[in-house]
Amino acid sequence: MRLEKFFAPKSVAIVGASTHKTKVGYEILENMIQAGFPGKIYPVNNKAESIQGLKCYPDLPSIGAVPDLVVIVVPAPVVPEIILQCGKLGVKAVIIITAGFKEVGKEGRALEQRISQTAAQYGIRVIGPNCLGIIAPSKNINASFGGDLPKAGGIGYISQSGALLAAILDMANAAGIGFSKLISIGNKIDVNELDLVEALGDDSETKVIAGYLESITDGNTFVRRAEQISNTKPILLIKSGGTSVGAQAASSHTGSLAGGETAYEAGFERAGIIRCDSIEQQFQYAEAFAMQPLPGGNNVVVITNAGGPGIMAADAIEREGLGFAKLSRPTMEKLASFLPAASNIHNPVDILGDALADRYEFALDTVLEDPGVDVALVILTPQAMTECRATAEAVVRVVKKKPRKTVLACFIGAEKIAEALDVLRSGGIPQYLTPEDAVEVIRVMSEFVRWRKKPKRVVKLFPVNRHKVEIIIERHLRKGLREVGEADAKEILEAYGFVTPKGALATSPEQAANIANQIGYPVVMKIWSRDIIHKSDVGGVKLGIRNAQEVMDAFDLMMYRVPRKMPKAQILGVLVQQMCKGAREVILGMNRDPRFGPLMMFGMGGTMVEVMKDVSFYLAPLTAGEAKQMLMSTRTYKMLQGVRGEEGVDIDAIAEGLQRLSQLVTEFPQIQELDINPYVVGPRGTVPIAVDARMSVEKE
Amino acid sequence: MRLEKFFAPKSVAIVGASTHKTKVGYEILENMIQAGFPGKIYPVNNKAESIQGLKCYPDLPSIGAVPDLVVIVVPAPVVPEIILQCGKLGVKAVIIITAGFKEVGKEGRALEQRISQTAAQYGIRVIGPNCLGIIAPSKNINASFGGDLPKAGGIGYISQSGALLAAILDMANAAGIGFSKLISIGNKIDVNELDLVEALGDDSETKVIAGYLESITDGNTFVRRAEQISNTKPILLIKSGGTSVGAQAASSHTGSLAGGETAYEAGFERAGIIRCDSIEQQFQYAEAFAMQPLPGGNNVVVITNAGGPGIMAADAIEREGLGFAKLSRPTMEKLASFLPAASNIHNPVDILGDALADRYEFALDTVLEDPGVDVALVILTPQAMTECRATAEAVVRVVKKKPRKTVLACFIGAEKIAEALDVLRSGGIPQYLTPEDAVEVIRVMSEFVRWRKKPKRVVKLFPVNRHKVEIIIERHLRKGLREVGEADAKEILEAYGFVTPKGALATSPEQAANIANQIGYPVVMKIWSRDIIHKSDVGGVKLGIRNAQEVMDAFDLMMYRVPRKMPKAQILGVLVQQMCKGAREVILGMNRDPRFGPLMMFGMGGTMVEVMKDVSFYLAPLTAGEAKQMLMSTRTYKMLQGVRGEEGVDIDAIAEGLQRLSQLVTEFPQIQELDINPYVVGPRGTVPIAVDARMSVEKE
Repeated sequence: MRLEKFFAPKSVAIVGASTHKTKVGYEILENMIQAGFPGKIYPVNNKAESIQGLKCYPDLPSIGAVPDLVVIVVPAPVVPEIILQCGKLGVKAVIIITAGFKEVGKEGRALEQRISQTAAQYGIRVIGPNCLGIIAPSKNINASFGGDLPKAGGIGYISQSGALLAAILDMANAAGIGFSKLISIGNKIDVNELDLVEALGDDSETKVIAGYLESITDGNTFVRRAEQISNTKPILLIKSGGTSVGAQAASSHTGSLAGGETAYEAGFERAGIIRCDSIEQQFQYAEAFAMQPLPGGNNVVVITNAGGPGIMAADAIEREGLGFAKLSRPTMEKLASFLPAASNIHNPVDILGDALADRYEFALDTVLEDPGVDVALVILTPQAMTECRATAEAVVRVVKKKPRKTVLACFIGAEKIAEALDVLRSGGIPQYLTPEDAVEVIRVMSEFVRWRKKPKRVVKLFPVNRHKVEIIIERHLRKGLREVGEADAKEILEAYGFVTPKGALATSPEQAANIANQIGYPVVMKIWSRDIIHKSDVGGVKLGIRNAQEVMDAFDLMMYRVPRKMPKAQILGVLVQQMCKGAREVILGMNRDPRFGPLMMFGMGGTMVEVMKDVSFYLAPLTAGEAKQMLMSTRTYKMLQGVRGEEGVDIDAIAEGLQRLSQLVTEFPQIQELDINPYVVGPRGTVPIAVDARMSVEKE
Repeated sequence: MRLEKFFAPKSVAIVGASTHKTKVGYEILENMIQAGFPGKIYPVNNKAESIQGLKCYPDLPSIGAVPDLVVIVVPAPVVPEIILQCGKLGVKAVIIITAGFKEVGKEGRALEQRISQTAAQYGIRVIGPNCLGIIAPSKNINASFGGDLPKAGGIGYISQSGALLAAILDMANAAGIGFSKLISIGNKIDVNELDLVEALGDDSETKVIAGYLESITDGNTFVRRAEQISNTKPILLIKSGGTSVGAQAASSHTGSLAGGETAYEAGFERAGIIRCDSIEQQFQYAEAFAMQPLPGGNNVVVITNAGGPGIMAADAIEREGLGFAKLSRPTMEKLASFLPAASNIHNPVDILGDALADRYEFALDTVLEDPGVDVALVILTPQAMTECRATAEAVVRVVKKKPRKTVLACFIGAEKIAEALDVLRSGGIPQYLTPEDAVEVIRVMSEFVRWRKKPKRVVKLFPVNRHKVEIIIERHLRKGLREVGEADAKEILEAYGFVTPKGALATSPEQAANIANQIGYPVVMKIWSRDIIHKSDVGGVKLGIRNAQEVMDAFDLMMYRVPRKMPKAQILGVLVQQMCKGAREVILGMNRDPRFGPLMMFGMGGTMVEVMKDVSFYLAPLTAGEAKQMLMSTRTYKMLQGVRGEEGVDIDAIAEGLQRLSQLVTEFPQIQELDINPYVVGPRGTVPIAVDARMSVEKE
């Protein structure tokens, strides 16, 4: 695997190993020894002869060998010097446990820079500083002060909070959860979440990658790599600290609707990353992914010895949108042949309160044979005659025999089921305390399966006039203009194959009437000013104008009224425009996220967009399928399909518009924000029109 | 308290007490003895002299005294005879543990009926049959086969699933959760959920009422009584088994949008009942309500020794819509005076990884003084120096001193915090394993406080023409008509103060033109037939007709086209109607729920209602505040207030419409379903118009 020297070193030096039991430098050494590390351990401390029975070295050079991994626990100001020693010695992997760097201010930041430079110069990979260390149970490595070595298992965990990792370790050790690797990434001056996700992606011991992150350094790259890894193993992340980071000063609808977390969500969705809301949820998910095969479909059967929890499971299955497996006639007949008459042989299969282990074994074995069953949930409540432990053993036995289908357990209780839980866990059956938790896990697994089955991403490239766009954007940037005027914005859109309404700018009522006469009625009139973004708010828009007199009246009224509301706005005239009739108005938009790049938006258009908030987001570039998916994940979609006898609109034309826009913003990273609103669409075969557009550009 | 003989009997007879350890009749006797019941216990069994050291009686009469409570464990067919004995003896409280009644079919149902009759005749209250029994820890009563006697505490629990109760008991005993009473209600032939909620409402030991229910016998009464009790103590219910019970054959929008669970939800909301999705969630909520005072407001402060979980808590606070307490300057200065410089003295208060108990004690004590703080969440992760147990003791100490404000703990870990958790629980501090769980509990508490603060419910009665409605409905019922035609429906609405559009029915094109000329243009035309519910689906609606020629054309087109789509429909003519212009179209509706009565609906109107599903429900009769609240809980509301320079509509007029409709359906229980769609509303001061209406009636 990558970062091999960290996770499978043959020798480890601990610089700052201490003789004092209360010191971190003592604890790490102790943890390494207790973990049973089979390689060499070199404590480095110039004030001791030996620590915990190991020979102690005054400094790194005096070891006389090059340790694969160096763990540093000395005070922050001394660290740069140790790194330099490492470099000269040829050490390639260093963990800096020490805190007191950028998190305490300017001086700490300067220290970090010195370390980074030295490390880069000598080709040293660094984890930390300000971290808890790393743990690799199967290699007997516990180079951390996080706690006892956990069991070996399939979960690889990365944490940006050391304290949280220690708490997780305490919980996991009590629950017997196993890990492949645990890594505290600290200030991540070198090795970051991406390096580690890639390393765990390569690691044959890791079945599931899980992590707690507060930030992602390079969102764009992270998404691309994570997308590849998700096809091999699931990635489960908690991403905290972002809710209030909004794009407050956004000038477009898309910008104001895309909060700080939207880009993370879109990125995670693209990459197939499963986002978790809490550690509890994360481990509930992770255990199922680590222990059980992915479900072949989403039809769930429930086996229970009590009606109540069976109903609760059935409710949850419906609520989570899963399928309620319909058992085949042969299955039901076979169930009926063995189970008592009062049993329910339909799903949920109720094998009654006096069910012993044999009844569970028979029922589970039987339903797993049914081709209509993808997942089985085995519920047990400890009743007078219930054989909790023997039932757990029976479940494990059946699953060993039929390992293809997903099986989860929900044994409800505590002391009475404690032994059974140990049996289940070591038998590879994930166990949940409530039916609702178990069913939620099934839903998450089944969504992940759906994500994996998506066709390969192919982004269509349309023939466009790229050169024209370059010229317009270049002109704006040269003049230092951020906002692109409507006329220029429409020229850009036209260059990318959008159709915009006919129209021209008028500076007098008579000119307006002339233009209108040429276009044909009805027309729309809009005040024309770079300083007015939301024209309708100031009475700067009039629709449905039917003749020349109305045109002239509207012109004069706008010229009179708008300046009174916006006295500082420089008004260039009034745009007279073809009025576009179409069945529906939608919005297509883009907001460029600093971490994840262009974030596309689709939604119900018009002035209501920010009220109804019926919008969806996805990262550009879009495939045809993704564009369609964006449409389908809004409520507006049903409306677009046509309701109650009304004809639907051309859905594919909207999806194409989104793809063209995606191509535009991908090819021109200078475009920061972009709204086409309304994008007026008509029935199948008609051409949608980009009626109004807003765009802003910035130097790359 | 009510049902005193069940929960505080002086003597208990167990009919069917058994000498065999594997029998339920043995277990119940054993549980009563082990619970330390201080009164008399009479085992009744005609085949034994004594059981478990107690003298055994051959039958009830031979006891020679009247037991306060009789627990019956004999086979089902014998139970009616025992009940008769109880009646003759003067026993007033009976628990029937025995199963094999209505849950097994017809014969069992017949047995239940005999028992009910005898019990009613002799004034015996019966819990069960087919139940686990009851437990009252503080009275040393364990008349159940559910498990060991739990600790005494503030939670009263009612369960419609015996097996679930046993599982809950196992979990609660392991976690040290205390109960006032636990009741398994079984088939509830007499004592039902309402009796028990009322009994627990009266019970001074019960601080929180919790329960698992699969059905509620009389929803309407339950809601009314529960509403009163919620003002004294919170009610937390799991209601399962209802998701797929839809009103499939509904003929109105309201009917098809009101699923089986909508009425339960509306009923629970009215009654202030807190609905829980799982047992886990329920106990998380219940413990907080039982242990801590209700928060005075929703401003939360977080104290933590680790950054990560602090951020997670802050995220959750924002996500759950709670307030993030802003600490006052004196509070921050005081914090700064004692805490190390690297601490964060803003919320979340980070007292750093090396915080000992004293730092927690000082910080908690300080922030609780701040008037801007309503709730404190104390987060601890077990780090190298952390004093878990001493910190728990410190938190308990501070809370004892300052018991007014709500304090919750989130100690994250397992073995390292095990002792601390015991200290917290016995000190009355609810503890959660993740910040997200704790914050969710705070949100639920704060919503409950908001519910309690609602003004007293006053339903306004409008002067109406009730007699006219009586006549119309009577006529329909006499003729056996379920659907009320549009004309009649509008007359009914007019009698209750609604305004409907001008118009009349035409049977020829010329007559249609005449009517239109009288009304004035534009007009609307609608096909007129009892058999066509959704007119626009069949091309039976035309809007915006501008002159007599268009009227005649539309008439003939409808008469030609509609019969081809609906060949069996009897067409009475075409309605010619004033075209109502208004800013917005909304829908007002009602669907009568068999358990909870009239369920009012409000939403965005027009043909989109079932697509957008932007609707809200509430039980009639509505107060002005509730009608307003219905409006406010839709996204449509923002649109009604006016967006982007558009004028808003008359919100109060819509709310009044809902109240008038609520009065109508309350006064006429024959009305089963009712939609006013669209209800066209204009700016403040204009009169809304009920443009179209659907109504169905049934004999009461």
